[in-house]
Amino acid sequence: MLTPVSILHDEIAEQPAVIERLLHEQWAAIATLADALRDAPPRFAVIAARGSSDNVARYAQHVLGRLCGIPVALATPSLHTLYGTPPRLDQALVIGISQSGASPDVTAVVADGAAQGQLTLAITNVPNSPMAAAAEHVIELGTGEERSVAATKTYTASLAAVAALAAAWTGDQSLREELRATPQALAAQLDKPADVDLDWERCAVIGRGANYATAFEAALKVKELTGIAAEPYSPPDLMHGPIAVLGPDHGVLAFAPPGPAAPGVHEAVAEARRRGAPAIVAGPGADLDLVAMPEWLSPLGAVIPAQRLAAVLAERRGIEVDRPFGLSKITRTT
Amino acid sequence: MLTPVSILHDEIAEQPAVIERLLHEQWAAIATLADALRDAPPRFAVIAARGSSDNVARYAQHVLGRLCGIPVALATPSLHTLYGTPPRLDQALVIGISQSGASPDVTAVVADGAAQGQLTLAITNVPNSPMAAAAEHVIELGTGEERSVAATKTYTASLAAVAALAAAWTGDQSLREELRATPQALAAQLDKPADVDLDWERCAVIGRGANYATAFEAALKVKELTGIAAEPYSPPDLMHGPIAVLGPDHGVLAFAPPGPAAPGVHEAVAEARRRGAPAIVAGPGADLDLVAMPEWLSPLGAVIPAQRLAAVLAERRGIEVDRPFGLSKITRTT
Repeated sequence: MLTPVSILHDEIAEQPAVIERLLHEQWAAIATLADALRDAPPRFAVIAARGSSDNVARYAQHVLGRLCGIPVALATPSLHTLYGTPPRLDQALVIGISQSGASPDVTAVVADGAAQGQLTLAITNVPNSPMAAAAEHVIELGTGEERSVAATKTYTASLAAVAALAAAWTGDQSLREELRATPQALAAQLDKPADVDLDWERCAVIGRGANYATAFEAALKVKELTGIAAEPYSPPDLMHGPIAVLGPDHGVLAFAPPGPAAPGVHEAVAEARRRGAPAIVAGPGADLDLVAMPEWLSPLGAVIPAQRLAAVLAERRGIEVDRPFGLSKITRTT
Repeated sequence: MLTPVSILHDEIAEQPAVIERLLHEQWAAIATLADALRDAPPRFAVIAARGSSDNVARYAQHVLGRLCGIPVALATPSLHTLYGTPPRLDQALVIGISQSGASPDVTAVVADGAAQGQLTLAITNVPNSPMAAAAEHVIELGTGEERSVAATKTYTASLAAVAALAAAWTGDQSLREELRATPQALAAQLDKPADVDLDWERCAVIGRGANYATAFEAALKVKELTGIAAEPYSPPDLMHGPIAVLGPDHGVLAFAPPGPAAPGVHEAVAEARRRGAPAIVAGPGADLDLVAMPEWLSPLGAVIPAQRLAAVLAERRGIEVDRPFGLSKITRTT
C-alpha cells in the first residue's frame, strides 16, 4: 500500500473522531426533533440531496422505513425550481442534506416544506448556510472543513446523523447504545487492510438493503477518484440484465455485511464468477475484511474500505486524489 | 440506416397503435380510479418497479408531482421481502409497474399496500398476473406480447398509462385532448431519421424534469443493446463531477425537448463541448430531430430516437438485437 500523504487519507482517518463528536454534540438537537416527530407524526419523508448526500438519502430510505415505518421519497428539485410546481407536502418531514448547505435547489425544497408549514430538517456542515436558515431543525455535522473533493467524513457523519435520528425517533435505548459503539468499530475498520487488485476499466458495484447506499457511494468514490466506469446496482437489478455484459475487464465489487441482504449479494457474485467475471467481496473475512457491526449501522463501516480502495487505485493511476481531474469542491446548481 | 429486420424494430414501430389502443380501451378503468382518488385523496404515492418500469416511475415522480401535487416515493422492495419490515403506507397510493406482473418483490409491495387497506394500482401487460391479482385497480397495457428483451412498446405504453392517470386525476379536459394527440405525434417521430454517429465506449446521458426519465431509459437501452457504458444524469448531477472525465471517447447524449428543463441541458452540452467531448442532442431541429409535443408528454416522443439509435448501434456492432448478450426476457427476483 502506498504511504498515505494526501488530505483525503487524513480525512478518511478522522471519521471515528468526527462521528464520536457528532453523536455527543448533536444528540440534544436530535432528541428535540424526535419529540416534535412523536408529537405530530409525519406520514412520509421527502429528502433533497445531490452526490454523496443523495446516497445518504438512500440509507435514510432504508433505515427510516425499517425502524420508524416511514416511507421516504427522494425529492424532484426541478419541480421546486424550474417548473414552479412544488408538490403538496402536507404531513411530510422535509429533509435537506448538503455538506455546504449552499445548493440552491436543495435549499428550495426545504424552503417549500417550511412555506407549507411542514417539519423541516437540514443536515449540513455549515449551520449558517442558506439551507440551514430555511429549516426549523438543524443537525450540524461538525466535521471541520472537508478539503478533498471526494466526500468521506461528511458522508459517514451524515449517515450517523440519519441513524441517530432513526434511533431517537423510535426511542429505543438499545439502538442508541449500538450507535454509541460505532466510532470504535470504525477505528477497528481503519486498522484492516484495504488494498486489493482491481484493475478493471469497468465495474459493477452491488449491495442491497442497508447497503444499497454503500453500493452507490462506493461506485461514486471509485468513479470520481479513478475515472473507472463504476455502476451501482442492487443484486436483482444486476441480474435483470447488466450481468450479461460482465467479463474479465468488467468485474463486480460487492458489499455483503452479514444480514438479510447478504445471501442475494453472494448469489450474484457466484453468478458473475460463473460467467468469468472477477469479483471482490467486502464482508467479514472476505477480500475486504469488514469488522462486525449491527447490520443497520454496517454502512458506516462498509464504506471505509471503499473510500480507501478508491484512493489507492487513484494514486496507482497517478491521479491527484485531493483534486481529481481538476474538480473543485462546490458546484452551485439550480 | 440498416434495413430493420428485427422484432425489436417492429415493436418500436408498433408504439403509436399500442398507445392509441391503450387510451381507448383503458380510459374507463383510469377514470374509475381517478374518482376513487378524488373521493379519498392520498397524500403521496409509492411505486415499485424494476428496469425500464423504474424509469416509468421516474416519469410518474415528475408528472404526478407537477400536475396532481403528489410526492412520489420509489419503493424499497427489500423492506417488504428480505427484512419483513414494510413501512406504514397510510394515505399512500401504492403502484406496481411490471410488464409481466411476475416479479415477486414488486408484487410484495403492492400486496402490502392492499393488506394495509390502501388504494393499489397495477400497471401491467398481464392482467391475470400475481401483481394484478394483488391490486384493486389494474391498467392493462395491452401491447401484445413483447418478444424482444429490450422493452420499448411496454415502456411507452406504461408512460401513457401514467400520463392518462395524471390527466384523469386532475379532471382537466385539455390535458386529455393533448394526450389523445400523442399517437399521431409518435407516428411523425418514427418518420424522422434516428441515425447518428455515436462511436464512443462510454456515454453520459442527460435530461431533466419530464425527461429525467428519458435520460435513464435511453441510457438503459444503449447499455443493454450495445454494451456501451451509458450513465444517466440530470445536468446538475453531471456538472457536480462526472463532467470532468468526459473526453473524445466519452461523449454526451442529451435530451432537450423545449420546456423549463431545456436551457440547463444545453448549458451542460456547451460545457462538455468546451472540454473537448462530443455531444449529440435530441431536440427540435437538433442532431436527433424531435417532433413538437406538449412538454409533459414529450418523454413519449423523445425516447423513440433513443430506442432506434440503440438498435442501430447494436446492429453495427454485430449484436443480435432481440436477444443481446444471450439475455432472456423475464428475471424473477425477490
